Amino acid sequence: MTSPVDIIQRKRDGGEHSAVELAGFIRAFMDGEVADYQMSAWLMAALLKGLSLSETLALTDALLDSGKRLDLTPLGRRVVDKHSTGGVGDKVTMVLGPLVASSGAVFGKMSGRGLGHTGGTIDKLESIPGFRTSLSAEDFVGQLGETGICVAGQSADLVPADNRLYALRDVTATVESNPLIAASIISKKLAGGASAVVLDVKVGKGSFFKTMGHAQGVAHLMRAVGERRGITVEAIMTSMEQPLGHAVGNALEVLEAVETLKGKGPSDLVEVVLALGTRLLVLSDLGWEAPQAEAEARRALANGSALAKFREWIKVQGGDVSFIDDPAALPVASTEIEIQASSQGWIEAIDARVVGRAAVELGAGRQRQEDSIDHSVGVRLKLKKGDPVMPGQVLASVYATEKSKGQKAAGMIQAAYGISRSRVEPAPVLLLE
Amino acid sequence: MTSPVDIIQRKRDGGEHSAVELAGFIRAFMDGEVADYQMSAWLMAALLKGLSLSETLALTDALLDSGKRLDLTPLGRRVVDKHSTGGVGDKVTMVLGPLVASSGAVFGKMSGRGLGHTGGTIDKLESIPGFRTSLSAEDFVGQLGETGICVAGQSADLVPADNRLYALRDVTATVESNPLIAASIISKKLAGGASAVVLDVKVGKGSFFKTMGHAQGVAHLMRAVGERRGITVEAIMTSMEQPLGHAVGNALEVLEAVETLKGKGPSDLVEVVLALGTRLLVLSDLGWEAPQAEAEARRALANGSALAKFREWIKVQGGDVSFIDDPAALPVASTEIEIQASSQGWIEAIDARVVGRAAVELGAGRQRQEDSIDHSVGVRLKLKKGDPVMPGQVLASVYATEKSKGQKAAGMIQAAYGISRSRVEPAPVLLLE
Repeated sequence: MTSPVDIIQRKRDGGEHSAVELAGFIRAFMDGEVADYQMSAWLMAALLKGLSLSETLALTDALLDSGKRLDLTPLGRRVVDKHSTGGVGDKVTMVLGPLVASSGAVFGKMSGRGLGHTGGTIDKLESIPGFRTSLSAEDFVGQLGETGICVAGQSADLVPADNRLYALRDVTATVESNPLIAASIISKKLAGGASAVVLDVKVGKGSFFKTMGHAQGVAHLMRAVGERRGITVEAIMTSMEQPLGHAVGNALEVLEAVETLKGKGPSDLVEVVLALGTRLLVLSDLGWEAPQAEAEARRALANGSALAKFREWIKVQGGDVSFIDDPAALPVASTEIEIQASSQGWIEAIDARVVGRAAVELGAGRQRQEDSIDHSVGVRLKLKKGDPVMPGQVLASVYATEKSKGQKAAGMIQAAYGISRSRVEPAPVLLLE
Repeated sequence: MTSPVDIIQRKRDGGEHSAVELAGFIRAFMDGEVADYQMSAWLMAALLKGLSLSETLALTDALLDSGKRLDLTPLGRRVVDKHSTGGVGDKVTMVLGPLVASSGAVFGKMSGRGLGHTGGTIDKLESIPGFRTSLSAEDFVGQLGETGICVAGQSADLVPADNRLYALRDVTATVESNPLIAASIISKKLAGGASAVVLDVKVGKGSFFKTMGHAQGVAHLMRAVGERRGITVEAIMTSMEQPLGHAVGNALEVLEAVETLKGKGPSDLVEVVLALGTRLLVLSDLGWEAPQAEAEARRALANGSALAKFREWIKVQGGDVSFIDDPAALPVASTEIEIQASSQGWIEAIDARVVGRAAVELGAGRQRQEDSIDHSVGVRLKLKKGDPVMPGQVLASVYATEKSKGQKAAGMIQAAYGISRSRVEPAPVLLLE
């Protein structure tokens, strides 16, 4: 094998790796022959010098080959999946999954935990007493066959190289690279066995991707990589200028998902769910074109069938479903601090990154990978961009377990809100379908 | 302190660090709060995005502040030092040091070990039975006062941060950065206490610096950094297109140094020694201008006083000096393999990097830091660039302890030689004084 130093040097100097070289490098990393400090130097060189499409494909293959691959062919169905690039208040999966499953599609997803200022679906689902997120491959496939939906934590024996790489990228400022992002996501999706995946690429302050151009670039790359490896990848771009919906925090978001399944969800969340749901139903094996798919998605949300599927899903994964009818069954932290507006006008902005960091400060997310999570804490945004506001009106509430953390988070939320004296239009959430 | 990830990200995105930030980063690295994998990611970002002069100065200061600093003021003399950027067959220090000391200057040098394809003076000196390279600060200063010359290994309590950084750079392809090189070298020189240093910047295939422009860039930067920290830094550029002199390997190079001190040295080595010696004598406190300094240097080499100083120096550092009169007292590996020319013409090139690697292959250098060295092995180049050659004529001899390694090295040396059918001029060694 080429020596690690020579491989790092090649990328540093703008050269291109062969597929064999990259595969050997990742294998040597997993075998302990390439040290973390060598991999992180390579990651930085790759971020700054870029990876070609061939290199991105080779890296995807190398990550995939580091572990097992779920075989979903026994189901005899196309399994659809959804991936969000990470947002604040993003409880989409908990609504979308039951919606498409209740329409007859099969929705199977391996999901991640939150890190940084963005939450993770697995952490949110673990707010529900009894809910199991750690499933064997057999249970995953079996549940998909019976219920049409399964959402489980990423299994450690799938793409272990990506797990290690991701942990390293997170602490070495090497996350924001389109090729590294594409290889990481697509390798995970390939390992998970889905036939099609729709990406929800978040754009804006609260996201990795600050501009549409950047988001489109990564979406295009993931589509290209997926296509060449036999998985259909589509993408929609949604705004992460402000958090999605009103709730940020694990139990709070589960409760907002239930409200949405009951037809009382915030409009931005509903819009994103319907846009993704339409795509997933089209990409499934139901034989529907977009107009029918959209009508079916709307109907499933309106007529309670998505809610019924949610109940079935939570129950089959061991969760206590009493919170569906009685929200008080999910504990929410008792110290509530209200944040009030100090001036009159219109809400101009709610910095999603700051809101996400406030939630982490409260204990809703992790500062370090080994931190535990307080599912009961979070933030409820009462007003969103474009809403008129009066002095003294409540902008948001913070729910804290420790008062001092609550006060700190409240200050952050206050700072996250911008109020304009002149009228502001509500912000569209769908940027590009 | 700014978080390590934020610091890495700032450099990754082309930003500039404050002196306080860089100092904190290096301190946190030494305290174990910044991991090796984070430092290597920063090093790669710094290599690719560059460091400003202020950042280079701040890094130099941070490295210097990580350890002790030798105080040479009790000597009441200007101490001069020399630094080579690393070459093949570079035994200059062993001739130059005694030469300037015999002329009345004080020559004090902390020297490194070889790594990669280039040798280190300390390894070469350790070919001499009994010679001590590990000296206390008191011994170093005391010997300088008595003998006017001391060459010791880099003490572990001087610039420990540079030692750790250098080890990391070596295995992460982050050596070749002018600011990182400048901060590393100048911080070491400041810690060593010299008043002036002359750099021998090697240029060409066998060096880090492939072009004059690159070499001049790093020389200019080191002069600027030195100037702002109160040390005079000058530089000459010498060719490393082919190895310096004829001998490559530890004991072989010591013997060639002795030959040179006896007035029978190879012309390229003598030229480099005289050029550096002239500069060092001018920068010393003898009050000489360049013409007098050059005359004194030539005289010291011609009249045996440099050789006498060499004998005194080796003896005072504990070395057995019998090899000075009897070369056989330094063991040279007994398996000699001659490499013969296969065609007629003129020597067009001797790839110094390949010769250096052949020497490492024989055991004269280290593949890894923990490797031990075989002082007896090496290569003697009989012909150099511009020499006419006949088929069957001996180009070089390899001296090996293990025959298989010798054969491999012989093949490499054969490949390192290029023979031209048309006349080739000898290569100048002094590129820019």
